Parts: sequence; C-alpha cells; structure tokens
Amino acid sequence: MANFFTDNEDLQFYVEKGIEWDPLVAITEYMYRAPDCFKDAAEAVSYYKSVMELVGEFSAEQIAPFAREIDTEGVNFVDGEAVFPPRLQGIFEQIKEMELHGMCVPRELGGQNFPLLIYYMNAEVIARADVSVMAHHSFHGGMAMAMLAFSMNEGSAEIDQENYRLVKTRWDDYIAEILSGKSWGCMDITEPDAGSDMAKLRSVGEQDENGDWFVTGQKIFITSGHGKYHFVIARTEKAGDPDDPFAGLKGLSMFLVPTYHEDENGNRTRVVQMDRLEDKMGHHGSATASLIFEKAPAQLVGRRGEGFRYMLTLMNNARLGVGFESIGLCEAAYRCAKDYAAQRASMGKTIDKHEMIADYLDEMKTDIQGMRALAMDAAVAEEMAQKVKLMARFAVAAGEIKQEEIDRMHVEFSARSRRFTPLLKYVASEKAVHMARMAIQIHGGLGYIREYDPEKLLRDAMVMPIYEGTSQIQSLMAMKDTLIGIMKNPQGFVKRQGQAKWRSLSAPDPLEKRVAKLQSISLAAQRHLITKTATDKFKAVSSEPITQWASSFTKDWNPKKDFAYAMLHAERLTQLLTDEAICEVLLEQAKKHPERREILERYLERAEPRARFLYDQIVHSGARLLKELSGNGEAEAEKAAG
Amino acid sequence: MANFFTDNEDLQFYVEKGIEWDPLVAITEYMYRAPDCFKDAAEAVSYYKSVMELVGEFSAEQIAPFAREIDTEGVNFVDGEAVFPPRLQGIFEQIKEMELHGMCVPRELGGQNFPLLIYYMNAEVIARADVSVMAHHSFHGGMAMAMLAFSMNEGSAEIDQENYRLVKTRWDDYIAEILSGKSWGCMDITEPDAGSDMAKLRSVGEQDENGDWFVTGQKIFITSGHGKYHFVIARTEKAGDPDDPFAGLKGLSMFLVPTYHEDENGNRTRVVQMDRLEDKMGHHGSATASLIFEKAPAQLVGRRGEGFRYMLTLMNNARLGVGFESIGLCEAAYRCAKDYAAQRASMGKTIDKHEMIADYLDEMKTDIQGMRALAMDAAVAEEMAQKVKLMARFAVAAGEIKQEEIDRMHVEFSARSRRFTPLLKYVASEKAVHMARMAIQIHGGLGYIREYDPEKLLRDAMVMPIYEGTSQIQSLMAMKDTLIGIMKNPQGFVKRQGQAKWRSLSAPDPLEKRVAKLQSISLAAQRHLITKTATDKFKAVSSEPITQWASSFTKDWNPKKDFAYAMLHAERLTQLLTDEAICEVLLEQAKKHPERREILERYLERAEPRARFLYDQIVHSGARLLKELSGNGEAEAEKAAG
Repeated sequence: MANFFTDNEDLQFYVEKGIEWDPLVAITEYMYRAPDCFKDAAEAVSYYKSVMELVGEFSAEQIAPFAREIDTEGVNFVDGEAVFPPRLQGIFEQIKEMELHGMCVPRELGGQNFPLLIYYMNAEVIARADVSVMAHHSFHGGMAMAMLAFSMNEGSAEIDQENYRLVKTRWDDYIAEILSGKSWGCMDITEPDAGSDMAKLRSVGEQDENGDWFVTGQKIFITSGHGKYHFVIARTEKAGDPDDPFAGLKGLSMFLVPTYHEDENGNRTRVVQMDRLEDKMGHHGSATASLIFEKAPAQLVGRRGEGFRYMLTLMNNARLGVGFESIGLCEAAYRCAKDYAAQRASMGKTIDKHEMIADYLDEMKTDIQGMRALAMDAAVAEEMAQKVKLMARFAVAAGEIKQEEIDRMHVEFSARSRRFTPLLKYVASEKAVHMARMAIQIHGGLGYIREYDPEKLLRDAMVMPIYEGTSQIQSLMAMKDTLIGIMKNPQGFVKRQGQAKWRSLSAPDPLEKRVAKLQSISLAAQRHLITKTATDKFKAVSSEPITQWASSFTKDWNPKKDFAYAMLHAERLTQLLTDEAICEVLLEQAKKHPERREILERYLERAEPRARFLYDQIVHSGARLLKELSGNGEAEAEKAAG
Repeated sequence: MANFFTDNEDLQFYVEKGIEWDPLVAITEYMYRAPDCFKDAAEAVSYYKSVMELVGEFSAEQIAPFAREIDTEGVNFVDGEAVFPPRLQGIFEQIKEMELHGMCVPRELGGQNFPLLIYYMNAEVIARADVSVMAHHSFHGGMAMAMLAFSMNEGSAEIDQENYRLVKTRWDDYIAEILSGKSWGCMDITEPDAGSDMAKLRSVGEQDENGDWFVTGQKIFITSGHGKYHFVIARTEKAGDPDDPFAGLKGLSMFLVPTYHEDENGNRTRVVQMDRLEDKMGHHGSATASLIFEKAPAQLVGRRGEGFRYMLTLMNNARLGVGFESIGLCEAAYRCAKDYAAQRASMGKTIDKHEMIADYLDEMKTDIQGMRALAMDAAVAEEMAQKVKLMARFAVAAGEIKQEEIDRMHVEFSARSRRFTPLLKYVASEKAVHMARMAIQIHGGLGYIREYDPEKLLRDAMVMPIYEGTSQIQSLMAMKDTLIGIMKNPQGFVKRQGQAKWRSLSAPDPLEKRVAKLQSISLAAQRHLITKTATDKFKAVSSEPITQWASSFTKDWNPKKDFAYAMLHAERLTQLLTDEAICEVLLEQAKKHPERREILERYLERAEPRARFLYDQIVHSGARLLKELSGNGEAEAEKAAG
C-alpha cells in the first residue's frame, strides 16, 4: 500500500526525533492534567504517528489516484449553491469518518486535542495528493479552532481552572457541527478593490436600534466560501486621516456571519448570497466564491475596531498552512520528476544521471528539506506562543508558573513565529511554482500533456504565491519587521554583527563558521538598507529648519517614501533572510543529530553564492529606478497641483 | 485601430534604422537583378513596412480579441482528422487572403521574395496575439521554404544563372499548394522513446525492389502534424558502434511523405494515419498530432544518411522562430502586466509605482529589448549565411565575386548564427515562462482566473522551453561549441581574454568598459570549465601507461564522462554567454544610435551582478554532486559486472 507518510524519511525524522515533543505535548495536555489525556509524550507521539500513518495511506490510496479527476470535474455552481462531484464528496465523507476535522480541537468540545503541528504535518501529506482537498479540509478544523481562539480571546469562553478543562465557548454548536463534517467555515476578507490593501475594504457592519449587527458588502476570491460560517471583516468606524494608508485598518471589525437563516422548523434560507464560483487556473477541488452580504445578521467578534487584529490571528495560521501545503506540492513535483527521470533513458543512461537533471533534482530535494525544517520550527513557535497564553489561564492561577515566565516564553515564541512565518509562506509558495515548472521541464513533451501530473501541479501551484498574502506582501512584512527591529535596538544589531563575525572566524565547527558567514552577509545587507534609508531620510530632513531635524528624523516616518530603497529590495532581502533562517534551523538540527549535517552542507553549497548575489544586487542596483519613480511621483504631484 | 506593430517602438527601431538593410535586401534581390525586383533597399523596406503594419493591425484586431476563444475551443479530432473551429478557420482564411504564406518565397514560385527577417518580425507580432496561430502559420511558408532549400541543397533545383531566376524546384506543385493556403507541412522527428536523443529514432525508411522508398514508424508531438506534407526523419542504415551515442545519427535519412494517396480522379486516401491529437496544457490553436506511418510512400531528400544534416537546417530556423514566438509572448505578458499595474491602485497609488512591481516591469522591458536585439542579429546572420551560398550560384559564375569572399562571409555569418541561435532559443523561451508567471503575480487573484489573459499566457509559454530542443539541449550545444572552440584555438582564446581585459581598463566609452568587464567574467568562467575539464581528463589519463598519455589526452574524448563538470554547469554558462552576447549586440547598437545607450545601461545593471553570481556558482559548486554521480555510475557498473 502506498503511504505518503511512511515513504517520507525526512518527514518521519521530525516525528521520531526532530521535534522536541515534551514541552509541546505537555502544554497541549495542560501539563498532563487534562481529563482523559495521554500519560506522557511518548504515548502521545505514538498515537499521533498512527494517525499520520493512516492519513499517509489515505492520501496515497484514496486521494492521489483521483487527483486528475478532481481537477477535471471541479466544483459545480448550481442554483446558487456549490455542488461537489461524487468523488470529492466521497473523499470528504472518509475524512469525516476518520474524525480528522476535530483532530486539534480539545476533547471537551468533541475533538482529540492533538497539537496543531500534527494537523500541519498531515496537511503536507494531503497536499502532496491534492492541494485543493487539503485546502478545503483546512476550512473545517481550522475554522473550529478559530472559533475557540476568538472566544477565548474576547473572554466569552468559560474555563474550569481547577479541573483543567474548557466548560464552554461562544460557538459550541457551530464547532460541534463542523466536527461532525456537516459544515465548515471560511474567512472573508478580499473585495474587488481591496486585495493586499485592507485599509480599502468597503463592506460595512452596522448596528440597528436593538443593538443587532448586520453586514453589507461584496467579498471575492473566498476559498471554501460555500461554507456555513463566515468570518467577515467589515468597516464599523470611519477612517481617520484619509492620507494615512494605515488609518483605515483601525476602523475594521470582525464578524461571524452564518450563511443561512434557520426557522424553528429547520427550514433554511440564504442570507449570504453566492453569485458565482471562480473559474480558476487550477486548485479545482476547492470552491472559490464571490459573495454578497445584504444586511446579513452578524455576530461581532471581540470589540469594534479589533477586526484587523483578529484577522492577523487567522492569517498567521493560514500562512503557515499555505507553507505546508506548498511543501506538499513541492514533494509531489520532486517525486514525479525524480521517478520519471529514473526510468527515462537518453544518450545511453537514465536522465537522472545527466548532470543538469541531477542538479535540478538535488536542488529540489535540498530545498524541500530546508523548507520543511523552517516550517516545523515556525509551526512549533506559533503553537507554543498561542498555548503558553492559554496555559497561563490555568497554571498561573494555580501558582505553578510565574506570569513573567509565561510572558518571556510568549515573547520569544511569538518573535520566532513572526520572523519565520512570512519567510516560509514566501519561499515555499515560490518554490512550489518553481518545482512544478521543473517537473514539467524534466518530463519534456510529456510534461505539457494533460494526462501527466506536472501540468496540473503547476496550475495548482500558481495560487500559492498569491493567496493568504502575496509574495510581495510577505516580503514587505519581513523587510519592515527586520528594519524596524534594527531601529528599535541598534545596539542589539551591532552586537549580532559582531557575534556573527566572531563565529565566522572562530567557531570550532566548520559548518557553524559557514552559517555565521552567511549571517554576516545578511546582516551587511540589512546594514546597507538601514543606512541608505536613514541617509535618504536625513537628506529629506536636512532641507527643513535645523530645529525640526530631531523630530523629523526620529518621528515623522512616511512609509510610502522613506522606505523606498528598502521596498525595492524587499524580495531580495527576504530571500537572504530565508536562507539565513533555514541555515540556522538546520545548524541546530545538525548539532543534535549528526546525520543532518549533510543536509546543511548541501543547503549551504547553494545558499552561499546566492547570498553573495543578493547582497551584490541590494548594494549595487536600484538607484536609477528609484530616481525614475520619485521623478514620476514629483512630476505627477506637480501636475495635480496645477 | 489597435496595431501591434505601430504601438511597438522598439520593434519599429529595427525597421527604421536598427537593421542594415542594404546588404540583406541586395542579396535577397540577387543584387537587384532579379526579375520584377525592388529598385533599392529604401523601396523594399517601405513595402515591408506596409506589410508589417497590415500584420500588426490584423494581429491586434482579428486575432488578439479571440485568443481566449481559440484557447477554449482548441482543435477537434473527428474521424481521424483535425478540425479547426470556425474562428480559427476564419483567421487562416484571412492570412491566406493577405498572401502571408508565400511572403518569403521567391517571386518565380509565386511568392513575394521578402527577407526571412520580415517573416520573423511578423511572427513576433502574431505571437503577441496568440502563439498557437503564429506556430501553425509558420508551418505553411516555413515548409515551402524548406522544400526550396532542400531542393537547392540536393541539386534538384534548376537555376537560370543568366537571368537571375529559379526555373524550377523538385516540389513546385507542393509549394504552390501551400502558398494558396490549401495545405501545409510539418516536421516529424520525435518518437515515444526518442526526444532529445535522436540517435534512438526507430522509424525506418526502406526501399522496395523498384527503388521506391517507404517509411514505417510512429511519430509523436508533431506540431501541425495534420499537415499534408511531412518531412520525416527515419533510419535507413544500421547504427555502427552501439556504445557511441552519436553513431546512430549517421544512419538517419530525410524523407518527404505526402499524407494522402490521390488517384487520377482526385479521390484521396490517408497513407499517414493520425491516431490522436494531444490534449495539451496550452497552445490550443495548434494541433499536436501523433502519427503512424505504415509503409507510407516516401521521397528521399538528398542522399541516404544525410537526414541529421537536413534536420539541422530545419531545426535552426525553427529555433529562431521559437525565439521570436517567445518574444511575442513576453511582449504580451509585459503589456498586460503593465496596463493592469497602471490602473490598479493600492496603498494610495497605482501599483506600477510600488517599488517591487516597478522593478519587475523594468526588468521585463529591459529583457525584451535585449532579447529582441539578439534575435534580430541571429536572424540576419542565419539568413545571410543561407543567402550568400545561394548568391554564389549566380555571382561567382558571373565573375562578380570570388568564391573565397563568399566562403569567408558564409563562415562568419554561420558562426554568428550558430553562436546566437541556441542562446536566443534558451533565453527567450525561459523568459516567456518567467514573464507570464510575473504577469499572473502582478494581477494578484485576477491572474489566477480564466477570464484574464495571464493564465493563458503561462499555459502557452510552458511549451517554449521544451519544443524544438529543450533548454537543456540548447545549453549543452552552447557549452560544447564554446569549449570545443577554445580547444581548437587556444591561442585565440588567450587573445580574446587579453583584449577583453585591455578594453575593460582602457576603452574610452564607460559602457564599452563595462561590457568588456562582463566578457572577462564570461571568459574566466569558460577558462575555469576548460581547465577543470582538462584536469579531470588528465587525472583519468594519468592512470594509463605513460606511452598512452598523448593519444588519450588529445584524441579519446568521451563526451559522457570527460565533459561532466561542464555539462553540470552548461545552463549557467549559457546564461552567462547570453548576457555577454546581448551586451555585445546592444553595444554595437549604442555606438551607432546614441538613443540606445540607456537600454544597454539598464541591461548591464542587471547583467553585471548576475554574471558575478554565475561565475561564483560555476567555480564554487558542483564537485559534491559530480562525485556522487560518478560514484553511482561506478557502483552500478560494478553491480552490472557481477
């Protein structure tokens, strides 16, 4: 029996020893005080593993063989509803029977209380079979978890601290319904004129005289938008300063909007209209809906104006999800290319022995291992960050841990997750496109024919760098976090530079030396960007009266103008930061597990010239284009002025 | 009226002044002695231009608006025949009426005797509207020209040297039929087990007792394979040494096989069966056929065993064609991305003013201009190389030019065409994929939807780096030509290194200095590869008895083993050679036309760090992988041995 988990050594490494299970299982099981919980990490992991084996076999035997059929049949739009073809219905029936939807939901709510990490690992395995099945699956459990998290966050959840259990959340019924496989949720953000720029969202949330909320507006590109529960972001407050692009974000609120109105007899009528499903390039097993809300009854989540913050919580998890989804697709592309190359003969040998093809395959394998290391680390960090806060609710009250300790852990894990998540979303989605393309190329003419897997993989991959925040948005986030971090703590930056320099010369391990050298290059690029940004800013400031300098330089930063140079190079910086992060994580692995050294060596071999190249580009190019852009900007401003 | 020629300044530059028309028109018009010919280059060019304007408008108004329809409808396979939907039929009806099929065919054969260059320029313009229409169009005139060239080449064409005219070719009827738009040809090479590796072709050509030839075999992936005239490559001689992968090429012959047997009453029956049309990812207006030849009556072209040589003639032109086709697709991708970015607002400005997007667009524009410069130069060189040989037939006999002069010109133009053609095919097809991908990315979510252009462009683009020789084959050709060139003339190489070094230091023009510096990097990479290749070879040789050294080192080169290091880096070398070639051509333009300097400057800005990166990779990576590959090879050999 084919099995996408047991045939994957690198993935098994994490289950066997790559993950530090003790703290993750302990915190997930409320320090083993949760009712009906595992007795220790070993017991838990052995159980997780058996579920992963099940999902591995299910993906290989029940999804992968039908991937082409899923692609061809798609999802149909009939009388305003999305209709899954029998094959997809059958697959989701099986997922329901395996109780995967509630895998990470606490036992008290009907789930199995697995770490989110197991969900992500399974997501990779399912995505290897078909990304659209994985995506739709994630809008079940993921949305149930969001309901739980939002209820905790807004304070509507009840907790029995003495018995280490949840008593109830605001949406227990919805969660139970999702776990039963009967419904799912979705996350409604994008609008026709507001994609990456969320400050431009126009949907509104309004309260009637009774205090009831209603949402009105149009939402597009909503993955699994044929769901029953919509987390909708809508404007409740007028934007402040119209010139401040970020002001608009403060007026957004989060709502939970059920699709149907149900009367006491169980008759239901749509209050959220679906006006079409998008005819997409790929990702065909997942419905992408366009939705119309006309005074749809809505439940305000948290407080008015907190919408963007709640959205970030959803988004962060979704981005991790796309990271794993993309790695699954990379794995599929790599394996189909490798298998084909091993059997196709040309010029007297199979083409996997041809130097160029061998090089492509070696790079694909190495990149997947590097990205998976980053993904695991990011997912653990994000989960720990979320769970230490939950833990505080139980353990601090019981005097078992100090609030300061919780806070310290939260800051540390949050920072790591915040640092790694955009890098993961960026690199995995870009590599999914690249590897699918290489799978086509390695297949030659066959790669261009619909009967073979590669062309579907490319069509499926193309959405990865777009949805849940484009590659460009990930790059801007990574760049801004990095540069603002330096500005906030320049001493810390100088110290890091010194440490990297020192380690690159004196670390006893040659691999550690090389990683430190790579970090030095990344830090030098960051230093260049920050210096250039500050110099440009100072030039602008210096035309002002000298008495204004201090305040202009330290306070009045205009993100549109002052970061222009860094924004131009944001993607290059992100590539550099990603290689740096992956090497750091692989080095940590290599220190604990000597068999992982060769992976880091392979990764460094490709990352080193790439880092020099990125640094070279960041330092030596872009001035002309920026001048043209600012010239254009000024010319337009003059034109507008009259 | 939209017009894809008049809206394209860069393309018009070539017609207006970028091309040295005088020699090209003169040689095309047999030094203005051909019957009914133009009186001078100016008259000819003004006529060419009017045709290009016509094609520009036709492409923009009659093809582009229906590109999505062409993609959706495809070509149908009905009762063993390919059926074009009415829209495509209508388009080809119009092409026929404009008499484009015979544009480059001599007037004596019913054509207009335009330079091939005009055909290529038009090909770019048509491809910008729809690549599959352009491809199918090219299998009309292109095949008529091949019939003419092959007839000249094998000596079956009759020439009236005194009156500077062709009297007849072997296939006048076929050519006339093609020019009338009623039929077209195709080029049948690929077989299920033989793609890039042509020595493995299994189709056979056999002679019966009457000396008549018949072809038997299967051919796949045949573009426009529903044509009436097939140039088929088939084996007529047994391969020699089975261990020599190139031995098989010598046993191939070229045949012309008509699809139908026609009796005296004009009733026709298929002798070449079409068993399916491929269901491709894109390129849907072009039929890709699988063909079966069972003792199909065939006409031997030239002599037995010359098949590979005839094929190369076809192939070289086809590769130039794909170069222009790819540039047309790049232009379409660039323009749709640019137009969308100019109207889509985000964060307070249109996204073409966002630094990263501006950078992508600037790179696309620059790359298109660079590639078009290379394409024009390669096409002129190829056409001149072909035409000087034809010229010799008239002018040498008339005592107007010496054979040595003809030979010198032929060598020079052939070398330039041979150097540039694989680079063009490589870079333009790879960039077509990249730019279509960037057009999707710049469109965000809309880019993933079938209503919009970008996703079709990507699906169409994916075949470019595969057909007419993959990117890997182009890279191997470019690498081998380069390294063998150095081995044949090491003194010349050392001299070129010295000259580049000298110009990089002392050229008065700073742009020339920078180009020379880039050349120095390319030459250094070549030197590294040749040194490494020779060192590896010497290591292998040194285990042999010392008396064998000289002969082993100078003679017994095994392309599979001795070039391993260079083969690993062939694609990187090709990228470097391409940047070098483009900069050379742009520098020549800049010297004559100062307004072109800024293009070279823009190109250099991106090519310089890239060149350093490629050099860095070539010099610093690959050793590990080669060791693994040769280890595998040895392990397998041991296993096989027992």
